[in-house]
Amino acid sequence: MTGWISDPADIYRQSFATIRAEAELDRVPADLTDLAVRVVHACGMTDIVADLAWSEGAGSAGRAALRASAPILVDAEMVAHGIIRRMLPAANPVICTLNDVSADAAKAANTTRSALAVEHWLPRLDGAVVAIGNAPTALFRLLELVAAGAPRPALVLGFAVGFVGAVESKDALIASGLPHVALRGRRGGSAMAAAAVNALAGGLG
Amino acid sequence: MTGWISDPADIYRQSFATIRAEAELDRVPADLTDLAVRVVHACGMTDIVADLAWSEGAGSAGRAALRASAPILVDAEMVAHGIIRRMLPAANPVICTLNDVSADAAKAANTTRSALAVEHWLPRLDGAVVAIGNAPTALFRLLELVAAGAPRPALVLGFAVGFVGAVESKDALIASGLPHVALRGRRGGSAMAAAAVNALAGGLG
Repeated sequence: MTGWISDPADIYRQSFATIRAEAELDRVPADLTDLAVRVVHACGMTDIVADLAWSEGAGSAGRAALRASAPILVDAEMVAHGIIRRMLPAANPVICTLNDVSADAAKAANTTRSALAVEHWLPRLDGAVVAIGNAPTALFRLLELVAAGAPRPALVLGFAVGFVGAVESKDALIASGLPHVALRGRRGGSAMAAAAVNALAGGLG
Repeated sequence: MTGWISDPADIYRQSFATIRAEAELDRVPADLTDLAVRVVHACGMTDIVADLAWSEGAGSAGRAALRASAPILVDAEMVAHGIIRRMLPAANPVICTLNDVSADAAKAANTTRSALAVEHWLPRLDGAVVAIGNAPTALFRLLELVAAGAPRPALVLGFAVGFVGAVESKDALIASGLPHVALRGRRGGSAMAAAAVNALAGGLG
């Protein structure tokens, strides 16, 4: 166990250098380079860059919203706990409403807790930064609500993961006209969603 | 947005069916099949099964430890928040000591907060289930402490992620003689580590 690298600054420096050497960052616009690097860092896979999709100006929109004190709405406690609070530019509130929804309430509504929890976002949705790191149903429900006239978030970070609805919900986000960054395909997760927020909040610092 | 699947039971059923159809579960021993399915479910990648490594009887050892009220020691709050408490067989405590360590203390010790936090595990380490979902340095430090005579955990779930030390720390775990399940390579993460705990705690239920 001799010789492992224990200096935090060294670890970050070497990690980011490896990512810059291996990931195809040329295809990513300048305002999303840090986001791509942090998302790769969170998952250990440089090839995800090829699956990243974004609307024009998404990075700038997200940074501006955070500087303007936008709340950060997340679909899972894991996302909330991956956001590095000291990096947030305006002590932005990080809001997860999943535990406001009981399993019984979801059962009565014949849907998931994640989808129902999104309805609790409505009073905070206007201009918010939304980070979906788990549930396709949360992303589907958000898109439904916005299509039906709900307030529009400033940016949606789409990193839903898995085998049922992840691909389709992120494709629907990309087609929705909402400002977005999304990872096409089955891959995703809370760590990637949180990393995307951290990059918009504080770059690679 | 019509036609998305919103029934939680349907989502689980279809997800697990897809995983069973696509993942090469034949190579996984019976006492780790549920774990493999849940870890794949957490990350959306069926090909990780090829990178799973384990010691003989690891799944049975983990299940027995949890039934015997073993504490679950985790390296990150994200892992703690991914563990489904109602599935735990003995209301097992889930312990993350990362926030017991200040950045100043880590700096003074010239190491990471994650590595230093592991030293706070020592009073609970004997027979514990350890789940590492983030920091290679936590896993390296754990292996050092055990090699130096610290109490031995019942099982170590090694899902450290990233570009500096993840590969090496998990290879060191596999070579350590400790009971383990680990994902070789750079991939890993908190969601996978939590999923592994959830599978040992409650299978696919």
